[in-house]
Amino acid sequence: MTAPRWTADPAEALRWTPVTRLDAVDPRSTPGFDGGKGDGRELLGDHRDELSDLQERLFAHGRTGGDRTVLLVLQGMDTAGKGGVVRHVVGMVDPQGVRCRGFGRPTAEERARGYLWRIRRALPEPGLIGVFDRSHYEQVLVVRVDDLEPEATWRAHYDEINEFEAGLAAGGTAIVKVMLTISPDEQLERLTSRLDRPDKHWKFDPADLRARAQWAQYEAAYTEMLDRTSTTAAPWYVVPADRKWYARLAVGQLLLQTLRGMDLTWPPADFDVAEQRRLLTGG
Amino acid sequence: MTAPRWTADPAEALRWTPVTRLDAVDPRSTPGFDGGKGDGRELLGDHRDELSDLQERLFAHGRTGGDRTVLLVLQGMDTAGKGGVVRHVVGMVDPQGVRCRGFGRPTAEERARGYLWRIRRALPEPGLIGVFDRSHYEQVLVVRVDDLEPEATWRAHYDEINEFEAGLAAGGTAIVKVMLTISPDEQLERLTSRLDRPDKHWKFDPADLRARAQWAQYEAAYTEMLDRTSTTAAPWYVVPADRKWYARLAVGQLLLQTLRGMDLTWPPADFDVAEQRRLLTGG
Repeated sequence: MTAPRWTADPAEALRWTPVTRLDAVDPRSTPGFDGGKGDGRELLGDHRDELSDLQERLFAHGRTGGDRTVLLVLQGMDTAGKGGVVRHVVGMVDPQGVRCRGFGRPTAEERARGYLWRIRRALPEPGLIGVFDRSHYEQVLVVRVDDLEPEATWRAHYDEINEFEAGLAAGGTAIVKVMLTISPDEQLERLTSRLDRPDKHWKFDPADLRARAQWAQYEAAYTEMLDRTSTTAAPWYVVPADRKWYARLAVGQLLLQTLRGMDLTWPPADFDVAEQRRLLTGG
Repeated sequence: MTAPRWTADPAEALRWTPVTRLDAVDPRSTPGFDGGKGDGRELLGDHRDELSDLQERLFAHGRTGGDRTVLLVLQGMDTAGKGGVVRHVVGMVDPQGVRCRGFGRPTAEERARGYLWRIRRALPEPGLIGVFDRSHYEQVLVVRVDDLEPEATWRAHYDEINEFEAGLAAGGTAIVKVMLTISPDEQLERLTSRLDRPDKHWKFDPADLRARAQWAQYEAAYTEMLDRTSTTAAPWYVVPADRKWYARLAVGQLLLQTLRGMDLTWPPADFDVAEQRRLLTGG
């Protein structure tokens, strides 16, 4: 009896490569994992303690002068499950160590100051895990599809973003970029459910239907984004998300592996432990 | 067989009143709760779904133009368990709906701009639960005890803070202020444990011993703070915290009752549901 497990390293199995084709990724598939829903949930839960421990080490590192941070960027069509990933994966660690930020339509000030201004302001401080629900990538997605900027303008963003992220990485940020991919059928079901449930109406936006009608244009925009901005410093992972449990498990595993790779050790005491113990007990 | 439960409303039992004396609050007591550690943990866990649901309603309210927020202010001596409350209570809800902020020694800029400047910048946006680990109250605690400002200056802060908080409350913020109170013996144990464990050294600060030696002065400062700033708009709760499980249960219960009291309903759709359903299915 073997416990369900990863049969391939998800960081390899899900990473975007120059030969990956978005339409060849089956949104219902569970790459690299040989178990089902119950197994996936259990395995994710099993990671809670290690995730918590590594997050606390990162936090301690930041509190003692270190500069490392993690930035998790989530992209995907409406209802792809970005919020659920934050709630169920990021929600496993101490909220003091997390900065979540969602990016909707920019305000007038944000537009005036350039698209990276609000992004820079939302970056995690040292020791924190930053989570972006949508991000600077909207600038080559909705901006492209809805023709909000001339093509020459948004095309320039690919290189700008790569430079920006290379700078972040050089400064100590481990960047994990995740695109959650769902099928049009699954989206139909999820949008229908939002319309059927009064407690979900607030999540529905008639503009979602517009984006749904532009599916092919979004696929083209995502593909070029992945091709142009999946770099060594900041790779993209394409995570099939029709099965919510798999998407959450996969992002949890990517986050775990990222933290493990940072070799986070507990900061040594910057005081004389024996002396403090003496002072404490009045000896 | 009766399940362990609150025998008194904790909001009543723990609320600071003009006749409460801090030295009459036993830090090992569990006011209003007739169960033990296991019961307390179980009851707190039982509140997870309701807390989550109410937090999501608050979030939805904020996303649809509402202005309500919750601000949880945590104060207490070092090792009183402020961080544990955040991790175990606030950590029960979606991290997207939470903004945590710790306040250490102010930077030069923060000092120059006045003590409320950094506080205002850290206030939760509409729909969020803001959590302050220490706060503007340090201005009448460490500042007083360490003589960092003339007495006339820090004394003026009581009224300023009351006005500031009254303004927040009028603007839609439900303020819950919690002072966690521990005994010197319990603190000794917790500080000793931090010194004994290399993975806790980063949490230890030799300055903590200084504050410990000023216990009586801090008690006087806390007492006057409670007397002067426990208002109808922003009451103080004094929570015995020698038993971590009780402190967490009590703060969880206070947070739950605060959210319940906000009468949060799901925002109604601002679109024609039937029409959107038709558009979605292409009918």
